[in-house]
Amino acid sequence: MIKKLKNISKQCRADILTMTTVAGSGHPGGSMSSIDLLVTLYSFANIFPNDPWNENRDRILVSHGHISPAVYSTLSAYGFINRDDVLSGFRHPGSIFEGHITRGIPGIEWTTGNLGQGLSAGVGMALAAKLKKQQHHVYVLMSDGESAKGQVTEARRTAKKYNLDNLTVIIDYNDIQISGRARDIMYVNIKEEYEAAGWNVIEIDGHDFEQILSALKIAKNDKNPTVIIAHTIIGKGVSFMEDTPKYHGKPLSLDEYKKALKELGISIDINKYIEMRKKIDISEHKKIYLKYPISINTGKPIIYKEKIDNRTALGNAIADLATLNDNVIAIDCDLKSSVKLDKLDQVKPESLIEIGVQEHNAAAIAGALSAEGFVTFFADFGVFGIDETFNQHRLNAINNTNLKVVVTHCGIDVGEDGKTHHALNYISAPLSWFGFKVIVPADPNQTDKVIRYIATQYGNYVVAMGRSKIEPITKSDGSIFYDENYEFEYGKIDVIRDGEEIVVITYGSVLPHALKAVDELEKEGIKVGLLNVSCPYDLDEEILSRYARKKVVVFEDHNIYNGLGTLLESKLFNLKIIPEKFVKVGIDRFPVSGNSKYLFDIYGLDSQKIKETIKNLI
Amino acid sequence: MIKKLKNISKQCRADILTMTTVAGSGHPGGSMSSIDLLVTLYSFANIFPNDPWNENRDRILVSHGHISPAVYSTLSAYGFINRDDVLSGFRHPGSIFEGHITRGIPGIEWTTGNLGQGLSAGVGMALAAKLKKQQHHVYVLMSDGESAKGQVTEARRTAKKYNLDNLTVIIDYNDIQISGRARDIMYVNIKEEYEAAGWNVIEIDGHDFEQILSALKIAKNDKNPTVIIAHTIIGKGVSFMEDTPKYHGKPLSLDEYKKALKELGISIDINKYIEMRKKIDISEHKKIYLKYPISINTGKPIIYKEKIDNRTALGNAIADLATLNDNVIAIDCDLKSSVKLDKLDQVKPESLIEIGVQEHNAAAIAGALSAEGFVTFFADFGVFGIDETFNQHRLNAINNTNLKVVVTHCGIDVGEDGKTHHALNYISAPLSWFGFKVIVPADPNQTDKVIRYIATQYGNYVVAMGRSKIEPITKSDGSIFYDENYEFEYGKIDVIRDGEEIVVITYGSVLPHALKAVDELEKEGIKVGLLNVSCPYDLDEEILSRYARKKVVVFEDHNIYNGLGTLLESKLFNLKIIPEKFVKVGIDRFPVSGNSKYLFDIYGLDSQKIKETIKNLI
Repeated sequence: MIKKLKNISKQCRADILTMTTVAGSGHPGGSMSSIDLLVTLYSFANIFPNDPWNENRDRILVSHGHISPAVYSTLSAYGFINRDDVLSGFRHPGSIFEGHITRGIPGIEWTTGNLGQGLSAGVGMALAAKLKKQQHHVYVLMSDGESAKGQVTEARRTAKKYNLDNLTVIIDYNDIQISGRARDIMYVNIKEEYEAAGWNVIEIDGHDFEQILSALKIAKNDKNPTVIIAHTIIGKGVSFMEDTPKYHGKPLSLDEYKKALKELGISIDINKYIEMRKKIDISEHKKIYLKYPISINTGKPIIYKEKIDNRTALGNAIADLATLNDNVIAIDCDLKSSVKLDKLDQVKPESLIEIGVQEHNAAAIAGALSAEGFVTFFADFGVFGIDETFNQHRLNAINNTNLKVVVTHCGIDVGEDGKTHHALNYISAPLSWFGFKVIVPADPNQTDKVIRYIATQYGNYVVAMGRSKIEPITKSDGSIFYDENYEFEYGKIDVIRDGEEIVVITYGSVLPHALKAVDELEKEGIKVGLLNVSCPYDLDEEILSRYARKKVVVFEDHNIYNGLGTLLESKLFNLKIIPEKFVKVGIDRFPVSGNSKYLFDIYGLDSQKIKETIKNLI
Repeated sequence: MIKKLKNISKQCRADILTMTTVAGSGHPGGSMSSIDLLVTLYSFANIFPNDPWNENRDRILVSHGHISPAVYSTLSAYGFINRDDVLSGFRHPGSIFEGHITRGIPGIEWTTGNLGQGLSAGVGMALAAKLKKQQHHVYVLMSDGESAKGQVTEARRTAKKYNLDNLTVIIDYNDIQISGRARDIMYVNIKEEYEAAGWNVIEIDGHDFEQILSALKIAKNDKNPTVIIAHTIIGKGVSFMEDTPKYHGKPLSLDEYKKALKELGISIDINKYIEMRKKIDISEHKKIYLKYPISINTGKPIIYKEKIDNRTALGNAIADLATLNDNVIAIDCDLKSSVKLDKLDQVKPESLIEIGVQEHNAAAIAGALSAEGFVTFFADFGVFGIDETFNQHRLNAINNTNLKVVVTHCGIDVGEDGKTHHALNYISAPLSWFGFKVIVPADPNQTDKVIRYIATQYGNYVVAMGRSKIEPITKSDGSIFYDENYEFEYGKIDVIRDGEEIVVITYGSVLPHALKAVDELEKEGIKVGLLNVSCPYDLDEEILSRYARKKVVVFEDHNIYNGLGTLLESKLFNLKIIPEKFVKVGIDRFPVSGNSKYLFDIYGLDSQKIKETIKNLI
């Protein structure tokens, strides 16, 4: 057994050096320090090369995704992927074997690359197994350097809180980072930190297969999350590479390569791969996107006829969905009563995951849970769920997750908490996360429909709302606009009041104010159209072509430089429509703290100010 | 002494209850648990009510900014601010006394509100004192709940690394968060975590003034960063408020208020403040922005005539500036050789601060250092310096810092590292941080001038660049474009090649490719104008009015949905200019991994593809 592992590792080392030298780029050093761990782990874990996505497989995540050569060589050694493809294609645009490992390649559970995020994803997957009462184990291999990231601390605590005895972390402790010795750059007391978090800690020599195997056995069978701190040597296996930072991100030259392979006693015809590589098309490879079919009972929509906040409609809809579907869960960051997950907590507490004030970790856990089959609602205030977790959601998007980011207290409707809490980027930020869709419902009735709708759709969504209680949007006759006959249709602009000479375009928290203004103006004999744009990314060209030709005013409680107004300008420019007049009202600076009623007045967004702006237009 | 503190605390408790009840919002519970700590700390520290920004003052930061009532009442007790103003104006838009504390109010060093960031700012200020060889002490008061944030761990390690014995942390350990007991929501082993990080730990009763004073004395005089874990009771001082989460974010009703004040034995005419409040204008108060004059020797610009990367020009300019000016420093996150801070490390290592793989913490430290008088360069890859630290920079902007975020490896020019490392939001994200300016220099010569320029300007800048070596941009006659006579002028669009019929608009990494294409087309008899837009936020209307009327193509290695193309559409729409043709080429999905030469080809940005696009336009 040990002999076999040794041989596989040696072959993998040669493959690591081959693919990086063929590619002329990549990270051989860390790959060589991690390879004995990987080879042993993939041998020990319960995985299925011929059925790589078997639901009962152990999950293996590699957080320091730059050691992709080690991962790919291991996967090829165990028959998950084709060796020739990776040795020739590594880091070539036409190959799936990208510079950092990619979810969806058989044997790879999570795309990583930005350090310190893999453990959170592993916690999410271990939690998913617990929720589904599955018996498989989750392994996270990570580096010592990335242990400095605060998010690791957050993930560690979460594992302890949820008693994730099905989780094992293995740290490749080679004490080398890009800029030198890890201990000099930023000392992390890894052992004591894990102990302080209540984990079991095992220390081993990361190049001793017996020790690795023995540690994996102990970790699998104990009743606690366990970390295996594996002391390793960067560049291990090739004398002139060992313990030197130089080869962290630099491949061997051909001469060095030959010397190294001789030392390893392995013979590879590298020219074959160099030639194969030349034949790969310089084009984008077909990307792999994992997804799963969704089966959801959406329940019975609720119609709200009284003044109520969108948050309550959100909380009620999530509670409904979770009650009806075991595959619906929600993540909270210590804002349960504010984001109205308290309803879910009452009716089905086991579907509410409480991560505390650890938003980075929570966002990554939510992404991983959603990848594991849960329609996952990540509920938070806008500033935390969007601004603070910007990069975590970008990585969720890269992982093609099925995440529903539901954010409350958006815009200036959080009020007195002030500028640190005013989420003004809820439309603009998700544009950076390719594939994310944004929906801003106007009232509790639309919120209810939107939440039930997104639960049925695979993919990442942001649903953004304010804090205050609002009157339901009504038709001209006073009846409910988003009534029992309303079906949410993504991308549709709703004409709340007809009128083409003067048209108000708005959404979300501003809509009730605009509606009041428009209805009052109607009584004064001024007819104004009112459009609700709840899907700012996919603008309804037909409606705009009709309503955006004369006098147009956009009102929004969003950063004016990158909100709906800007998206409309861009869209109308491309439609070659220049309205007679086009005015934008939004937030152009950090707002002050104050009752949101006052703030809507100060920033020109209450019904009185909206009326004034419209009258000035005439 | 103790008796005096007791009396002040009692008065402060009454003031806390008064201002929150008058405002009808705010956080009385945590304010009451922190107040004895604050009152003692402001008495103990070396501060000057009549000269609040005295350079030698001790710095006091309060990280859990929502306990603003406690901070304001303490400041009023010690004569920093006017008591009537805060009791009547708290959380009113017309008052400077916002919901979360604001930098610039006398006695307040840092605007906080998003939890877990204050310690990093405190580390930055303590580091600033060390760098300036000043003797003052830095105190950070924070809550137990926010100790869950990973960034706190990062800050803690940094304090130890730099031996910040001038830093004392005080934790208000009341064990209550919004959603219940801190220990139930997410257990943080605060004591052992600090011990693992090598800090001194003192545990005290946070309502016992003698213990608080004694701990502060020990902490001030020891040779290590010290944390004082102060066990407290939320709502302390009013029996029905004690140890209940209910009053975390909810003020007392008038009846409850009267009961509470009776128990405290304090008499306040609350109606006076209610009446005063009614008279405050519902308008935005004049905001306080701290800043300082900058004196910088910009040295002698370097002219690059050979092919070289912008990064090297960046590193050389920073090294130059730091050599000439002791108030210039740079922050690295374990990417020294990649962001070319190795040059600075050679010539003036004491001006290079190495924070390791802890970007959130690094960004906040950088902001605080810049607030303390250092022209601070925060160097990082684009994905880490922009995407990962999105909210930290938003908070730096709120604090009106003087930060220079210099990011390399932007766009797809990072190449083989792939999509996790492709920074595609370097123009769009900073739009969310009001006041930040973005500059994307085209070549090493422009980079040199830009870096020297921003060092002289107070304010926050992003300077974004790619990774590859590029030929210097030249004039038609082959001479250097950005030569010794060039002065960088913010907002100016440079006409690299004249021509109005067909105009290419681009910047940064794409410009050398576009220039090659345009010069080749010229030889083929096709005259194409070429504009370099290095300041995408402030578009030169005069140049656009002239050059953007006919056939226009925008090329960029940025997210196409929110890059320069979109900003141009918006600008042209507002100028009512609809060009004959307008084409955008940019990145509309997560790119693949590959040599950047290949990627520029695949995504239509190399000279060959640029030529094809232009020819198709004709």
